Amino acid sequence: MIDYFEIVPVGFVRKDKEETWIEILEKYKDAILYLDRFSHIITLWWISEKDNENDRSTLQGKAMIRNATKEPPISGIFATRAPVRPNPIGLTIVKLLKIEENKIYIDRTDAFDNTPVIDIKPYIPKSDCILNTTLPDYFKPLTEKRIE
Amino acid sequence: MIDYFEIVPVGFVRKDKEETWIEILEKYKDAILYLDRFSHIITLWWISEKDNENDRSTLQGKAMIRNATKEPPISGIFATRAPVRPNPIGLTIVKLLKIEENKIYIDRTDAFDNTPVIDIKPYIPKSDCILNTTLPDYFKPLTEKRIE
Repeated sequence: MIDYFEIVPVGFVRKDKEETWIEILEKYKDAILYLDRFSHIITLWWISEKDNENDRSTLQGKAMIRNATKEPPISGIFATRAPVRPNPIGLTIVKLLKIEENKIYIDRTDAFDNTPVIDIKPYIPKSDCILNTTLPDYFKPLTEKRIE
Repeated sequence: MIDYFEIVPVGFVRKDKEETWIEILEKYKDAILYLDRFSHIITLWWISEKDNENDRSTLQGKAMIRNATKEPPISGIFATRAPVRPNPIGLTIVKLLKIEENKIYIDRTDAFDNTPVIDIKPYIPKSDCILNTTLPDYFKPLTEKRIE
């Protein structure tokens, strides 16, 4: 029986004062052909600083919600977007600005500089844009949809 | 230098004739507390059958688009949702029907029966629902947003 699966970095988040980009490793450069035809991409990244036994065995915590009108309860990690989780995979949907060589310029990301990127997928409304979602009331500041 | 990161299954997809559910491993059961307050969840799963050297080194292919009005070109894997990719992580956003004990009942999933699930996140409009996306013209059948 396999105990775990192996994930490899395909690139890294880079940030300077003005720009944010994903630098795809030379080895995976061919995988970005025509990605520039999409306005938005789903980025999956490895939350390196939470990749330790203690954080990976934390199963409950509070959702962090800016401008929350109501205190969120202690919840299961799967009911939050907390970085502390059994598999520390971050998911951020970002606006693609331009691609130059192996650099994918994006508008912003939660991920720190040098964070390993593990997958990139195009954002597709038919699978990813759900209009009629419901959320618990303490998530109210986050119910607005995105236009950017 | 670390060559790879370790991902563990947190549960498995189960399907019978009538229902589809995710069975969370006993060990991670506490992580689903209050998940039932969300109507939709993002599921990340491990595409086991594509976890081999050949598939993981395939960098280009055609997007599979049902009812495509135009033939998609050979594209980089990151510009498709193909299951063959450097890290075989599947991402499907599903409707949550009910939770009973460690079983999360969902409306459907692309994942086969017995597929390892590696993360579950709540679907949050403010981060995940983007209204003004653009896609290449061969993705036209998939530009419609979801109401369900």
